[in-house]
Amino acid sequence: MKKQDVVLTGDRPTGPLHLGHYVGSLLNRIKLQDVYKQYVMIADVQALTDNAANPQKVRDNVLEVALDYLAVGIDPQKTTVFIQSMIPEIAELTVFYLNLVTVNRLKRNPTVKTEIQQKGFGESIPAGFFVYPVSQAADITIVKANLVPVGNDQLPMIEQTNEIVRTFNRTYSTDVFCEAKALIPKVSRLVGLDGQAKMSKSLNNAIFLGDDVDTLKKRVMSMYTDPGHIRVEDPGKVEGNAVFTYLDAFDPDVVKVQELKDHYQAGGLGDVKIKKYLFEVLNAMLEPIRKRRLELGQDKAEVMRMLLAGTEKTREVAQQTMRHVKQALKLDYQ
Amino acid sequence: MKKQDVVLTGDRPTGPLHLGHYVGSLLNRIKLQDVYKQYVMIADVQALTDNAANPQKVRDNVLEVALDYLAVGIDPQKTTVFIQSMIPEIAELTVFYLNLVTVNRLKRNPTVKTEIQQKGFGESIPAGFFVYPVSQAADITIVKANLVPVGNDQLPMIEQTNEIVRTFNRTYSTDVFCEAKALIPKVSRLVGLDGQAKMSKSLNNAIFLGDDVDTLKKRVMSMYTDPGHIRVEDPGKVEGNAVFTYLDAFDPDVVKVQELKDHYQAGGLGDVKIKKYLFEVLNAMLEPIRKRRLELGQDKAEVMRMLLAGTEKTREVAQQTMRHVKQALKLDYQ
Repeated sequence: MKKQDVVLTGDRPTGPLHLGHYVGSLLNRIKLQDVYKQYVMIADVQALTDNAANPQKVRDNVLEVALDYLAVGIDPQKTTVFIQSMIPEIAELTVFYLNLVTVNRLKRNPTVKTEIQQKGFGESIPAGFFVYPVSQAADITIVKANLVPVGNDQLPMIEQTNEIVRTFNRTYSTDVFCEAKALIPKVSRLVGLDGQAKMSKSLNNAIFLGDDVDTLKKRVMSMYTDPGHIRVEDPGKVEGNAVFTYLDAFDPDVVKVQELKDHYQAGGLGDVKIKKYLFEVLNAMLEPIRKRRLELGQDKAEVMRMLLAGTEKTREVAQQTMRHVKQALKLDYQ
Repeated sequence: MKKQDVVLTGDRPTGPLHLGHYVGSLLNRIKLQDVYKQYVMIADVQALTDNAANPQKVRDNVLEVALDYLAVGIDPQKTTVFIQSMIPEIAELTVFYLNLVTVNRLKRNPTVKTEIQQKGFGESIPAGFFVYPVSQAADITIVKANLVPVGNDQLPMIEQTNEIVRTFNRTYSTDVFCEAKALIPKVSRLVGLDGQAKMSKSLNNAIFLGDDVDTLKKRVMSMYTDPGHIRVEDPGKVEGNAVFTYLDAFDPDVVKVQELKDHYQAGGLGDVKIKKYLFEVLNAMLEPIRKRRLELGQDKAEVMRMLLAGTEKTREVAQQTMRHVKQALKLDYQ
């Protein structure tokens, strides 16, 4: 018997998913689906907020992301996967929420501030991007989610959602919505192949779940290690060495990893060797995922049917939520 | 046979309609409904943008406004009247449009600037109010309206809509939408009873279409004339004299009005006399409207049925528009 709590997470379909997603969220979802009622949203509308001119990319990646979900073990029997744009109730709720948030409050949102800088919008932020904390509040509350797995950097989004929930309930003297709690995962972020802060498609430092063996090998062999570790016999650094970070994250044989670390630090263990070992570890993990992904990819229509079924289930819940919202807003004409 | 052009107008249901609406827009709509395909929107969602905490007022006035429409002669057989909140496609389209407009562009909208000052929002503009030119673009384009009767002060709204239309068509290489043209009515604004710039419920200087005879008389007798016209025998001013402004607007007997003006300017015609005459003119005009309004008000369920029928008709058009939009955005999953 699952708990009553409702979990919502999701991904923007701007590219296939990579190892960073795997440790940062997918593994967590596979656990959560046995404990809670879980929704996973493919956020195509949100992806368009900064890809307005590139809808085909977004469209294509909806299916890629769905393939990744199924391949890693997100089970449509346990998790409701849905497509955001097919739930118009989210847009409706967003429009009502926009009345409850001031422009100044949105300007102060630290996550938006940071992302505006990162994306280099400068003075011309699309309004859709500016208000996306409000549509995120609609995403979360349309299915009445009370648990939201997010990284630390996304905490202001949960705060904004809860502010809106409180304002809504107070303004309309209702208890339609409940506040959401952040579920901070233990491993929230994987460094990139280059040792940089974050694995990301746009930084070209990622290993994708669907990469073939050759690509995987090439990418692992290119990884960042210890730049001071020139000759095999030199002692090498383990901290900040991406290869060891990945071994810590992915190799279940912790004793073996510790031995390798000791050897590397003492000197006499070459980068090529540890990379080859990491390749074996990753390949053992990714091979069944890759295989399953290829199989599922044979029948994309079936994957789409799964998405449409999850979307329909979500839509029923969304419609019920909007009935309650419209009662509260006195917009329940009949 | 009507022309192909599609007209959209509407009102925010924040109070019953008054004489300002009558000359400014209702009379025009009665003419337009014979020439064009006409939609009239009761903008309950937009009314909530600055009445978020007062939904019951908005709800109640939806029916009051509908009564006013029917009473003056807007014919549901010729004009499709609909309730904005019941067309969720408008919210969907708004969300997509928000990606095509920058925050800075919205800040520069002169109409928004002015209204923000008038409403005294200061630093805390609700985001919903800030983005309302974008939802207005969605209102207009969801029914593919190409003619929009607006006052001069609303021209920037049409410009904003057309900018969005051009950006949408260019970005998604489509011709889903056409640009809209403003139809500037001859009499666009009626001064208030106090002679102030604008008749408005909130300024308490209005005559409502549903006012009973006593209220009408009281309001006319309180009107602003010429403050320099103290004794009956004094010459009086006609310019800026609200009573004569109203006679010009409402008395079909232009010869009689000219005689009164001459007499008043020469001296010897008292304010009470011209007010009583204006009362007769207005009452003759308003009596059938008032009577019809009372009759219709007996069966509010029937009025609501008319609104729901118009809304359903609009919804079909809106759904078709959104099918085209989603094709253009590559969000037409199946």
